[in-house]
Amino acid sequence: MTVQTVQTVQTGLTKELARNIINTTYDDIPQNVREHGIRSMYNWLGVAIGASNHESVDMALSVASAVESAGQVQILGRNERADLLHATFINGMSSHIFDFDDTHLDTIHHPSGPVAPVVFALGEVNGYNEKDMIRAFVLGVETELRIANAVCPSHYDLGWHITSSAGVFGSAVAAGILLDLDEEQMVYALGIAGTQAFGLREMFGTMTKPFHPGKAAQNGLFAAMLAKRGFTSSVQVLEAKRGFAAVTAPEYNLDEVNINWGENWETLKNAFKPYACGIVLHPAIDACIELRQYAKPEEVEAIQITVNPYVAELTSKPSPATGLEGKFSIFHTCSAAFIDGDAGETQYSDDRVNSEDLLSFRPKIKTIVDENMSEEKAYAVLYTNDGRQFDVKIDHATGSLENPMTDEALKKKFMNLVTPVLGEDKTQMLTENFYRFSEVSFKDEILPYCVGNK
Amino acid sequence: MTVQTVQTVQTGLTKELARNIINTTYDDIPQNVREHGIRSMYNWLGVAIGASNHESVDMALSVASAVESAGQVQILGRNERADLLHATFINGMSSHIFDFDDTHLDTIHHPSGPVAPVVFALGEVNGYNEKDMIRAFVLGVETELRIANAVCPSHYDLGWHITSSAGVFGSAVAAGILLDLDEEQMVYALGIAGTQAFGLREMFGTMTKPFHPGKAAQNGLFAAMLAKRGFTSSVQVLEAKRGFAAVTAPEYNLDEVNINWGENWETLKNAFKPYACGIVLHPAIDACIELRQYAKPEEVEAIQITVNPYVAELTSKPSPATGLEGKFSIFHTCSAAFIDGDAGETQYSDDRVNSEDLLSFRPKIKTIVDENMSEEKAYAVLYTNDGRQFDVKIDHATGSLENPMTDEALKKKFMNLVTPVLGEDKTQMLTENFYRFSEVSFKDEILPYCVGNK
Repeated sequence: MTVQTVQTVQTGLTKELARNIINTTYDDIPQNVREHGIRSMYNWLGVAIGASNHESVDMALSVASAVESAGQVQILGRNERADLLHATFINGMSSHIFDFDDTHLDTIHHPSGPVAPVVFALGEVNGYNEKDMIRAFVLGVETELRIANAVCPSHYDLGWHITSSAGVFGSAVAAGILLDLDEEQMVYALGIAGTQAFGLREMFGTMTKPFHPGKAAQNGLFAAMLAKRGFTSSVQVLEAKRGFAAVTAPEYNLDEVNINWGENWETLKNAFKPYACGIVLHPAIDACIELRQYAKPEEVEAIQITVNPYVAELTSKPSPATGLEGKFSIFHTCSAAFIDGDAGETQYSDDRVNSEDLLSFRPKIKTIVDENMSEEKAYAVLYTNDGRQFDVKIDHATGSLENPMTDEALKKKFMNLVTPVLGEDKTQMLTENFYRFSEVSFKDEILPYCVGNK
Repeated sequence: MTVQTVQTVQTGLTKELARNIINTTYDDIPQNVREHGIRSMYNWLGVAIGASNHESVDMALSVASAVESAGQVQILGRNERADLLHATFINGMSSHIFDFDDTHLDTIHHPSGPVAPVVFALGEVNGYNEKDMIRAFVLGVETELRIANAVCPSHYDLGWHITSSAGVFGSAVAAGILLDLDEEQMVYALGIAGTQAFGLREMFGTMTKPFHPGKAAQNGLFAAMLAKRGFTSSVQVLEAKRGFAAVTAPEYNLDEVNINWGENWETLKNAFKPYACGIVLHPAIDACIELRQYAKPEEVEAIQITVNPYVAELTSKPSPATGLEGKFSIFHTCSAAFIDGDAGETQYSDDRVNSEDLLSFRPKIKTIVDENMSEEKAYAVLYTNDGRQFDVKIDHATGSLENPMTDEALKKKFMNLVTPVLGEDKTQMLTENFYRFSEVSFKDEILPYCVGNK
């Protein structure tokens, strides 16, 4: 491997970033960016509550209990509480357990996981103005995405899980905004955060993957709390010869960090996953959902789906036995999409994967691999028992930048995730109030509905 | 930069390491290794207590207070207490503030900082057998040093502060031993720890440098606590294609990790600094201390010291005004060494740097730069006012592997660091009891003497 560094040292780049962050007011953030921020937090809350009863959350709560953690902050979707730092970790981890959170497609970064739990936790403890919370969230996300842009793809390719390694900057910024850091303190917060950048992609497929955004959230918050108290760090964590970029990325372009600040918003490129499986399957799912209008399951002889070779390589498990295996089976996934009209966590429970109606439908799903079919497309033909046929072509899957999830679809996703945990009433109240985030009281009109029932 | 990877993937290397660790009993550790472990913890305790009133410790305690941290564990040298995780962080940070802790010279790794605070904190909370504490400490240090050997020097050269990036493995292992992890849990603890490897050398010269070993200690402890509860990670954090070595080191040799386990002990290569400044000045200090026998300060006309060019480059500050600047002045340092017979933290206080006797002596220190003088050597000639002259040649400075600090010198260092903080009685009791670590009660005969007076 030959390594080449694109960028020479730019003195003052981290200071310029801190200045940009501090100087961006709520009113400086365009209305559509703020709304996308709210949408991102709403999507994040859904996945965090949805996975909140996972055994890894129990384990993390057990550690908090062993250190006699204080009950400052609500664990979302649960009855338990924990101190500011532990709750931030746990809520951040929970939101990535289903791998169903948001994605910045250019960098494969999941932006909300490291940032939103900090905004929620500090919002609960310190009772910030809801507009400040939106500002903190957007600036945190904007910062981590710009840093991700600067070091990707080489940083990710080398093996770093960008969601934690760049995410720690986002959490420090969100915390720094809410803690009202001055410019110098924000530089230090970025430094203390950036030296803690961590997260190996080798951990994918284990509990330590969702651990990453949670711990990044906690580390960034900790960095900002120290900086607020005068703790010092390097003032050039990003651009120094032995700084974040040079040490963790074979190639990078730090121009990305401050360019067109306040005009271009990476935050707008944050996309939401409609389905609880790899993005590669999403076009096929869209196709099968669209085909539902033409026939009932018992009328179907076959559904023939033409896909990119990569889809076949990753999702050809013919007989999945568990929910997790189901995510890697186009046969289960497309059966569920056709019969249930969705591919959410409900469709990936162990029970649903083994249920009779889906098992008998699986053999009807046929795949054709076509190198000319690009990854974001799919083509499907439904053949009925009585000889009719219907076809559908998907050019951009739902959840892509070209075809983003509608608010209606986002609400349906939220309902499906949250209702089994909190019941219909709380889920409904959260949805109604969250979309008016800047006008409601976070503590009175959102938080109380995040508390678990048992 | 051309990057070359020496090592191909060795399946099962992390598992083999975990098995080696678990299977090494107290009795399997040779007597001299155990004794060196005790010596290392004693040296560590001295620097931790010595720096415990530093303002960065106040800041860290303020954060602990903001999250309502429970009082499970003593902050060494202070009156405050904090929970297991915060206290581990703070005590680990404190021990590196003076940059006066131990060093594994081959890798520039400071082994005790990430490991000893875990042993102390868990020892206090869970009341472990003192022999288990020694075993945990030695196995933690042995693990981090072997991993450091495997990735150095390329890992350090790239910009990683090895003390935290490899140290997190050591803290996880020490915690894992005390928490009695089984082999599978130890593999997971190594994985959760290793994915958290962090620490940029760019932070040197700021409070974030000592932050590194403290946070590594905390992260490793947290990893072991999660693993104990069933939390999973990759089982090949070290050797995987996107594991710790491949992602953080351009060149590495993972054979170092398990080779001759139980026979060769890297722990024995842990050296202690006699003087509170860069190692490069140590031969000159030794020389000046030896010259004291020949003349009183007022009888000295000049001391001419021949040094390596590197010494002149790094330590030629002629008129240091602060303690920190004094560390980079051979003129102040050698004046203090001759007049006080030492170069400890006392000699690097702002007051001592500006005191009259040293200021007037400084011009008598003359340096000759000689490229043929190697870094570990010095040659000094003392000229008296009445025309006599005496010379001394240092081949290996005190604190080097060839000329290690004696226990007497180590005790003197400890006294100088701890007496100003805790007073003579507690300092004396700590020294007496610590050298009998395996025979005394940690909770009754060591811990109580670590508590601050105010």
